[in-house]
Parts: sequence; structure tokens; C-alpha cells
Amino acid sequence: MPDYPLITLLTDFGISDPYVGIMKGIIADIAPKARVIDLTHMITPQNIREGALALDRAYPYFPAGTIHLAVIDPGVGTERHALAMRTDHYLFVGPDNGLFTFVIKRAKSSQKPIKVVRLENPRYRLEPVSPVFHGRDLFAPAAAYLAAGAALENFGDVIENPVVLTMPFPEAISNGYHGEIWAVDHFGSLETNMESGLLSGIDPKQIRIQVAGKVVDHWVRTFADGEPGELVALVNSSGRLCISIVNGSAANELNVGVGTPVDLIIHN
Amino acid sequence: MPDYPLITLLTDFGISDPYVGIMKGIIADIAPKARVIDLTHMITPQNIREGALALDRAYPYFPAGTIHLAVIDPGVGTERHALAMRTDHYLFVGPDNGLFTFVIKRAKSSQKPIKVVRLENPRYRLEPVSPVFHGRDLFAPAAAYLAAGAALENFGDVIENPVVLTMPFPEAISNGYHGEIWAVDHFGSLETNMESGLLSGIDPKQIRIQVAGKVVDHWVRTFADGEPGELVALVNSSGRLCISIVNGSAANELNVGVGTPVDLIIHN
Amino acid sequence: MPDYPLITLLTDFGISDPYVGIMKGIIADIAPKARVIDLTHMITPQNIREGALALDRAYPYFPAGTIHLAVIDPGVGTERHALAMRTDHYLFVGPDNGLFTFVIKRAKSSQKPIKVVRLENPRYRLEPVSPVFHGRDLFAPAAAYLAAGAALENFGDVIENPVVLTMPFPEAISNGYHGEIWAVDHFGSLETNMESGLLSGIDPKQIRIQVAGKVVDHWVRTFADGEPGELVALVNSSGRLCISIVNGSAANELNVGVGTPVDLIIHN
Repeated sequence: MPDYPLITLLTDFGISDPYVGIMKGIIADIAPKARVIDLTHMITPQNIREGALALDRAYPYFPAGTIHLAVIDPGVGTERHALAMRTDHYLFVGPDNGLFTFVIKRAKSSQKPIKVVRLENPRYRLEPVSPVFHGRDLFAPAAAYLAAGAALENFGDVIENPVVLTMPFPEAISNGYHGEIWAVDHFGSLETNMESGLLSGIDPKQIRIQVAGKVVDHWVRTFADGEPGELVALVNSSGRLCISIVNGSAANELNVGVGTPVDLIIHN
Repeated sequence: MPDYPLITLLTDFGISDPYVGIMKGIIADIAPKARVIDLTHMITPQNIREGALALDRAYPYFPAGTIHLAVIDPGVGTERHALAMRTDHYLFVGPDNGLFTFVIKRAKSSQKPIKVVRLENPRYRLEPVSPVFHGRDLFAPAAAYLAAGAALENFGDVIENPVVLTMPFPEAISNGYHGEIWAVDHFGSLETNMESGLLSGIDPKQIRIQVAGKVVDHWVRTFADGEPGELVALVNSSGRLCISIVNGSAANELNVGVGTPVDLIIHN
Repeated sequence: MPDYPLITLLTDFGISDPYVGIMKGIIADIAPKARVIDLTHMITPQNIREGALALDRAYPYFPAGTIHLAVIDPGVGTERHALAMRTDHYLFVGPDNGLFTFVIKRAKSSQKPIKVVRLENPRYRLEPVSPVFHGRDLFAPAAAYLAAGAALENFGDVIENPVVLTMPFPEAISNGYHGEIWAVDHFGSLETNMESGLLSGIDPKQIRIQVAGKVVDHWVRTFADGEPGELVALVNSSGRLCISIVNGSAANELNVGVGTPVDLIIHN
């Protein structure tokens, strides 16, 4: 057991109920030295893809050995598996429903080791397990026992093919790329599914973005390089192309959201 | 002083002001080893009953010795007492206004020991005590001194009859029970005041629920046993009868809330 | 390095994205023993003054040695400085944009020592520093290295004149004071910029407040001294004159907010 075992927590449980607090109580009981850090609990209810993106944004910034516990779980209590997973740096616990898509794809594409097992061992549960709250009865105990030193191998059988979601990656078109908005943040900035690498070697003056009938062609390094109220394009802190309004909300102004098409046009 | 004294925190203070942070600063000053876990700060302002229900849902999941600090306090600065309380497993701190109704009733009905004292000792306060923020000046210091090892008996005189709210328990009617919705969660699920025990020995096919002019007769084990958008009845994670919409919000769809009547009808 | 280094965190990042969690992950990596306490993350985006007020309300309640990390940063990535600051009791980290106005003014007016330096040392950063997220790449690492024992002097050159905002202090008029609402809290209470000291020696019966066409002349010690729904005036927990509706929201009822003029009239 490390000196400061760390567990992160990402859910769609919101903050008005004590659901998250209950999970922390159970963790404190099983692993008194563990610390819990909230990633967010405001994932849109049942939105697995949104949760996968938020987790992907955050998990690499944690110390090696951190246990990432994530519960967006519309299939709770059904035949979907519950999993624990070990990559080269981290442990993960949650439902096997695609929530860990980016983690799994990254491990596989970089040929790093990854091991996924089912949560089957009754020793690491809170019995009786309610069919409607595995966060409390299954996932929080599993993360806590891992923090307390239990071996991944003791939890259950290997899952050979954990669920991976198909993500809407951008497609090349004749004069650029066709993509979409796949995340909107608290500031109303619109993150597209286009990585900044798509732009390498191209003069920003030759690139314009089209979204919701608007053309965005002012590329900035950071927000305040534009005028207040101006629509600007930039590379955001996750390395993706992003549309923002300086000191305002692009989501509100353009009245768009996740799934809205975005075209990146390269011209002369 | 235990190695990892734990304090939970439940208030109606919201998250936009630093009120909760201030309480944690005071706790850190008095009891540097104590850890604080938030239950929720989104109780509807001044709604003692809602706070009592949320606390009841959460407190039993914490390690023995946990100090549960709860502040929903419309009577702050008036003659209402401030209390600290010890049950067989936990300590509680907060206003004596009914917030601990379930804890007190459970202790009394199970004949477990319970001791309630007033917070009168000026040594365990932040002087001068503001008449409008006892969370800061009275309750946070009291919880912190308890975490640091102060004896309950040193805080003040015994309160013989702490305030207990009258809860709207369901009443038996000729063909079932008449109850009400008494909590709505983040997902829009409607928790009734009817315990699952009311159903024992009865075939679910013989039970229907009537709420807001709708009949709910599809009983499921868990949400995904219904179709997306379907209105279903189930036993929730607190062991109470609950009405949900699969992957949706029953509260929004039915446009109902706390206090809405619910009838449970047993038929042939 | 103290046994329990404490870092507080105040931002406008909201709670729906994992931005705050990412900062905590970085802190945990650099300073595993540090604990982080959230003040609030719901400051209105880009509203430096609102952040300065919230920080001012909270920071004095923390143990000596606490590191207060605050990020409301519309100028991120521009020429505005990043700073670390030491006062007689605390350390502060954040952008040099006025966020620490009250701290700086208090130190200067009381002739207490204060030292402000730029965050220039690449050793205390996360490279490469994104121009759009200094909370992650610059401020969280700086606070964490301070918590881990790094000397303020090692971060960079002294800033002689850190940015200080002009605050709208009340002005004396013939029959009282002309001020304004400068904060609205979760309960809808309206905090004015008038300190309770303005009232000393004056009979409250001789004072009335005028706001939004209403006259408020019922002065109370605490909320419940008024009738539910009544508009009352009181001194709030920050020692400022405040207008509230008992068990209701003055902000909603009067439809006013930050910046609304308030007159305090002294009559016979």
C-alpha cells in the first residue's frame, strides 16, 4: 500500500444528492489512507462518451499508481461487466461500457501492457449488491481494496475484449476536413474532434473554420489575443482545434453543441 | 485522537460562495489531521426535512467514529439550541431543529445509546460568534474539537428532548397505501416514502402505482430492464419505492416534485 | 515542508469539466502530502473583482502557512505577469491582475511585510506551458512546489507594484452614504459595499436603506428575527450591511444584482 494512495472519481451523479459522499465513506472505511480527488460529477446523465472524453482529458496528469474510478452506468445491474484495469501507469475501475475507450485504445496503439479483469470476487463488494447502485456496492469497494493493496488478479477473470466506443473522428474532404464539436466546456468553448496535428505545416491564414453558418478565420494563440466578443479559433489545452468567443460563450452565441458539424477549409 | 478523524459536511450553503471552504479552513486549523468529506451543499435553502433525508441516506456508510456535521439552519442566532450528539457509532453536530430526526428515531426505536448536549462552552467556539453564521463560528469549531479529541460531555448541558420532525409516513387505505414523493434526485427519479417492506409477499403483477394521473405498473429490478423513455417502478438504493423514466427524468416528464401524492394499489 | 501543507483553490473553472481535478492531480504529483481545499469554482467567468471579494472573505480563516491558489485569468498567455506572494501569514499564487487586491491593500495599510515575485523559473512549471491553461501548467505547479518547500525567492524577480483594482467604496452624501451591491450570495442576500462601522453610534431606528425603489427599515440581528418573506437589513458574516428576505431570495424578489445602487439614509 503506497503512502498516499490516490483515487479519482468521475460520475454523472451530480452534486445535489449524497451519492458521491457515500462512495467516499465506503472508501474511507476500507482504505483509510486513500485520498479521493473529484474529476467531475456533472457528466450528462448516462452519457458514456462525454465521460470517456472527460476522463481522457484528466487521467494522464495524475501520479503513477493513481486509481481512476469512473461511473457512468446506464446498464447498472444488467449483464454488462464491471471491470478493473491496469495500464503501465494507472489502475481503472468502472463499468465495461466504453467509458475507458481512450485509455484502452492508447494502450493498444502504443503496445503498452494492459490487463482487464471482471469484478467478481464477493470479498471486494458490499453485500447485498443493489442492482441500481454499483458505484456504492461494487465500484467504490473495488477501488478502495486496490488502494489498500489487493492484487488486480484476485478480482476475477480476464476480460479479453473490453468495450470500446466508435468515436467520430474527422474525415478528410477535398479541401480540408469534416469534423464535429465533441465537447463544450464551462466557458462555452467548442472543442472539435480535430487534433492540432492536422494543421502542421499549414499557414493559419490559409485555414478557416465553418460552423453553424459562420466562418471563423481569426486564429489566436490565446483568448485575449482577440477582441472581447470576437469569435476566434485556437488550439485548446487538450491540443484540439477549438472555437471560442473572447470573454463570452461560443456555445450560447452560436446556439450549437456536441454533434454540430464543423468544417476545416484549407484555401489559397 | 484517531489517526484519520473524518468529518462529513452537509449544508444548504451552495457552491458559489466560499462558506463551505471557510468551515474547512477552521477545521484544518483546529484539527490538522481531520479530513472532510462533502455529502452535499445543495439542500434547498432552509429545507430541514430534505437535509434530514439526505443525511439519513449517507451517514451509515461511514466508518465508526465519523463526525457528521450538518447545517441547515433557518433559525441561526435565535433561541434554537446548537447540539452535539453521540450514538453507538457516530458523532453529530448541528442545529437542534429536526435535522437529525432519523438518527434520533433510529437510536430510540432500537434502544441504542444516544447522548445529546448543547454547544455552550466558549472554549469550543470562534469568538465573537456572528448571529448569522454559526456554521463558521460554532458548528465547524465544535466538530473540529471533537475530531481533536474533546469529550462530548465538555461542550454543555444535556438536551433531553432534541427536536424531531413529524415525517409524512404512508397510510394504509382499503386497497393499498397512500403516500407521497419525498425526494427527487439528480436523475429525476421520484423516491416515495414507502419502504420496500410494504411489498413483501405480494406479487408485483398485483401492484400498480398511481401518480399525477399516470398508472405505473412495470416493475423492474433496474433501470435498463425497461425501454428508454419508459416509466418504471423499482426499489431504489435506499430501499424505497421509486418511480423513474429509463434514461430520462420522471420529475420533468410528470412535472411533479416533493409532496406529490402517490397511491400504491394492490389488485387481483 | 510542514506536516500538513494546505492549498486552497479558487477559480472560475466551474464544476462540469475536469480542469480543477487536473490541477489537483499535478499538485498531488509534486507535493504528495499537500491537501487541497476548494473555496469555490463558480466565480462568474473572467470576473476578477468577484474573485477578489470571495478570496477576501475566506483566506483569513485558514491556518498560517496556507497557500492560496486563485485563478481567474482572462489574460492567460498574454503579457500579464504570473505571481507568487508572501504576506505575514500566507502565500498566494495566481495571475497579477487584481485578484489579490484586498490582500495587498490590507498588508500595505497595516504596514505588514509583503513580497511579490514573478513565476519565471522553468523548474517550477509543467513544460511546455500551454498559452490557454496556466492553472495547469504554471499556477498549480508553483503552489505545489511552495507546499513542497521551495523558497519564494527562487521563483523569479520581484514585482514592485502588483496590480490593484479600484473598488467602488461608498461615498458620503448629505444625509448618509451612497453605495452599491457588490455581492449576491447563494441565498440571494445582497451584500453592499458598506461596512458595519458606518453605523456605529447611530440608532438603527434612524437608518433606512433604499434599493430598487424599496425602503428597508427593519433592522434585525439575524434572519429569523423578521417574518418569513419580509425584507430586512442586517450586518452579515463579513461585517457588511446586507439586505435579505427571510427564507427567500432578495436578489430574485427585487430583481437586482451586483452594481445596483444602494442608499443608506440617516434621518431623525
